[in-house]
Amino acid sequence: MRVVLGVSYSGQAYQGWQSQLSGITVQDRLETALGKFTAQRVSTLCAGRTDAGVHALMQVVHFDTDRVRDPHAWTRGTNANLPRDIAVQWAMLTSDAFHCRACATSRRYAYVLLESPIRPSVEIGRVGWTFKTLDLDAMRQAAALLIGEHDFSSFRASQCQARSPVKNMIGIHIHKRGAYWRLEFEADAFLHHMIRNIMGCLVQIGQGKKPVAWMSEVLAARNRRAAAPTFAPDGLYFLGPRYDPQWGIPERTAAYDALP
Amino acid sequence: MRVVLGVSYSGQAYQGWQSQLSGITVQDRLETALGKFTAQRVSTLCAGRTDAGVHALMQVVHFDTDRVRDPHAWTRGTNANLPRDIAVQWAMLTSDAFHCRACATSRRYAYVLLESPIRPSVEIGRVGWTFKTLDLDAMRQAAALLIGEHDFSSFRASQCQARSPVKNMIGIHIHKRGAYWRLEFEADAFLHHMIRNIMGCLVQIGQGKKPVAWMSEVLAARNRRAAAPTFAPDGLYFLGPRYDPQWGIPERTAAYDALP
Repeated sequence: MRVVLGVSYSGQAYQGWQSQLSGITVQDRLETALGKFTAQRVSTLCAGRTDAGVHALMQVVHFDTDRVRDPHAWTRGTNANLPRDIAVQWAMLTSDAFHCRACATSRRYAYVLLESPIRPSVEIGRVGWTFKTLDLDAMRQAAALLIGEHDFSSFRASQCQARSPVKNMIGIHIHKRGAYWRLEFEADAFLHHMIRNIMGCLVQIGQGKKPVAWMSEVLAARNRRAAAPTFAPDGLYFLGPRYDPQWGIPERTAAYDALP
Repeated sequence: MRVVLGVSYSGQAYQGWQSQLSGITVQDRLETALGKFTAQRVSTLCAGRTDAGVHALMQVVHFDTDRVRDPHAWTRGTNANLPRDIAVQWAMLTSDAFHCRACATSRRYAYVLLESPIRPSVEIGRVGWTFKTLDLDAMRQAAALLIGEHDFSSFRASQCQARSPVKNMIGIHIHKRGAYWRLEFEADAFLHHMIRNIMGCLVQIGQGKKPVAWMSEVLAARNRRAAAPTFAPDGLYFLGPRYDPQWGIPERTAAYDALP
């Protein structure tokens, strides 16, 4: 039986999604909780591996098990064994034809950024920060240059394990509410550090340190050294993957409304 | 010289505002930072003492010093010595006639509550939680019964040091956005645990466990045992005090827009 879970977490206390010997990762915590609930070793796969400090509103995970439980029991039983900063939002039983990574048609992320002369405090660990004001028009123009299929090697971390640096950027939407910027990214898939590296460039353009056209130069260079430094993980949220509607996978969780 | 600061903090890591021998309080951290910046012992007073786990968007603090610095230097110099979950938003120089506690005409708090069958995770430590749905009309009717001058002894913690249990509740406003409730309270002053004890009663009424009229019974009892248990500190934010406009004290900070 294949079980699919929608999982939300705060990334602040963890060394990212992916299991490590340290055991201080979201995957380790989730597999420990599933192991306690099923009294079996459970191995999970996820739709989008998140870095240390990066949050998820809806990570989608699947695993195979011979334990028979209804979806509500999977949710409650797993949550009873998870730490308080990770929670299963829903569980579904699917056929083996569903694969949380391979079936995902796109992934969505949001980056939340505080624009203020004073650094974050109440919102620590949950927002990025720029002390200089940003130019919305310039950032939107620069973001538009990234839409479509491109070789994103300039925004790719050296540790990236993706087979190809060519990804299809479907949309980048930029909004401002009060002192908080929210940048939403959707692509078929993302390279390691890709959004944080794009954020570094967008912020430099928004601050007026670089012209809009610089984004095209960085993209064309296909060289990580052409781009800005990697931006902080604090403000990055994995909103979740999208799937063909036939699978009936939810695309939103309550926590979406908690983002600034 | 009297210096006034507007201070924001996340209360998650602290045993409240008030200085303690443990040293793990916001006042201890702020006085240590001011001590480093001025190379003097600095003693502060605040407009509203917050409990362990309670956050502040704008705590107002004052202290006296013979050090001469401009407001911008007070802000930057103090922030350079504060931990990352506490930040001075602004500094002002005033006459000795200003007193952050005595001159405050009212205090405002917000309580943020997640209504969901699943407990908080991404927003851990920053929201309260109800797994049962709440009735907005019933809660608004019950809240209206508290408006005006009353003896709030039923909502007063035994450790409360206030001289009188009679306070003037100026307003309670209740809104819902998605799965998040925001309840804003304004009163001339609040007793110890008063909002968390009122929250406990409002949630029981919202869940239908108690009728609206129960709020009047609890209030009339003037006895802490008549009210519901104290609600969690996690979702409580001190929005700040209000003063006569002559003092020119800001009433908002950027972080207000970060609340769900």
